[in-house]
Amino acid sequence: MTDRIIRAVPLTAEAFAPFGEVIEARGEPSFQINQGMCDRFHDLARVDVTDEEGAPGISIGLGRPYALPLQLHMVECHPKGSQAFVPLAGDPFLVVVAPDESGLPGRPSAFVTSPGQGVNYHAGTWHGVLTPLVRPQAFLIVDRVGPGTNLAEHVYDEPWTITA
Amino acid sequence: MTDRIIRAVPLTAEAFAPFGEVIEARGEPSFQINQGMCDRFHDLARVDVTDEEGAPGISIGLGRPYALPLQLHMVECHPKGSQAFVPLAGDPFLVVVAPDESGLPGRPSAFVTSPGQGVNYHAGTWHGVLTPLVRPQAFLIVDRVGPGTNLAEHVYDEPWTITA
Repeated sequence: MTDRIIRAVPLTAEAFAPFGEVIEARGEPSFQINQGMCDRFHDLARVDVTDEEGAPGISIGLGRPYALPLQLHMVECHPKGSQAFVPLAGDPFLVVVAPDESGLPGRPSAFVTSPGQGVNYHAGTWHGVLTPLVRPQAFLIVDRVGPGTNLAEHVYDEPWTITA
Repeated sequence: MTDRIIRAVPLTAEAFAPFGEVIEARGEPSFQINQGMCDRFHDLARVDVTDEEGAPGISIGLGRPYALPLQLHMVECHPKGSQAFVPLAGDPFLVVVAPDESGLPGRPSAFVTSPGQGVNYHAGTWHGVLTPLVRPQAFLIVDRVGPGTNLAEHVYDEPWTITA
């Protein structure tokens, strides 16, 4: 069963790149605005809505926490749009993603965020549910709003164990 | 000169409605997601990009604080898209908006946010610069990214004084 144990590693833009963007103010700002009073880290992620019936919307999610290790039974994806989650308080949260292999999710990868990091999943990226780790946590969500089915769920034959 | 003194009042969705949306988790959630583990406050604001060359992007701004009372010399607007600012820490910030009167900004209104409140300016809304009040503050910014001119600035003949 050890091959079904996945250890969560610190989230980095490089490791996450196949799945989306890490949204964080890292390094030097892109430019300044407001007569130098504001540093802007510009265009860190795009809001992608793939169908004409949808529109990009801003929502808030208040998530309850999970404990590690956890059993990962299911991942989901949203074919019609990207989905960004940015924490409104600095506690870490767990990010689980999986590569697409002929329409099904492969072996998951797990990341733990640093304070100030959010993520943007590309449209169609398999990912786990919103997973605070410390206490209830509020997230700004930027994703597609609109009619039609925009959710695919996959239940793995056997669960994966995600550990710290 | 007292007619050029504007007192900032607490931000409410009702008072801000002519200018945009207040982004906050207020009242009952719209619905639950993730098997009941997350309350979603859905579609609180739309990201509006009015031209085909632009796209909705996610940025971060790190703003330096201002002290009240302040002298408001200038407001700006972005005709090609909405612009959302959501604080990534709970300190209050100042929101200044002004009605459009035949293409020019009228008398400003000033609001102070409560912790957890962000704002989304409708496309073309006259507004002040990002104005933290307590300490440097990070904001998630969701607005149009793309080529072309998307900024109009107006300098008032006389400044306004914004007070707490």
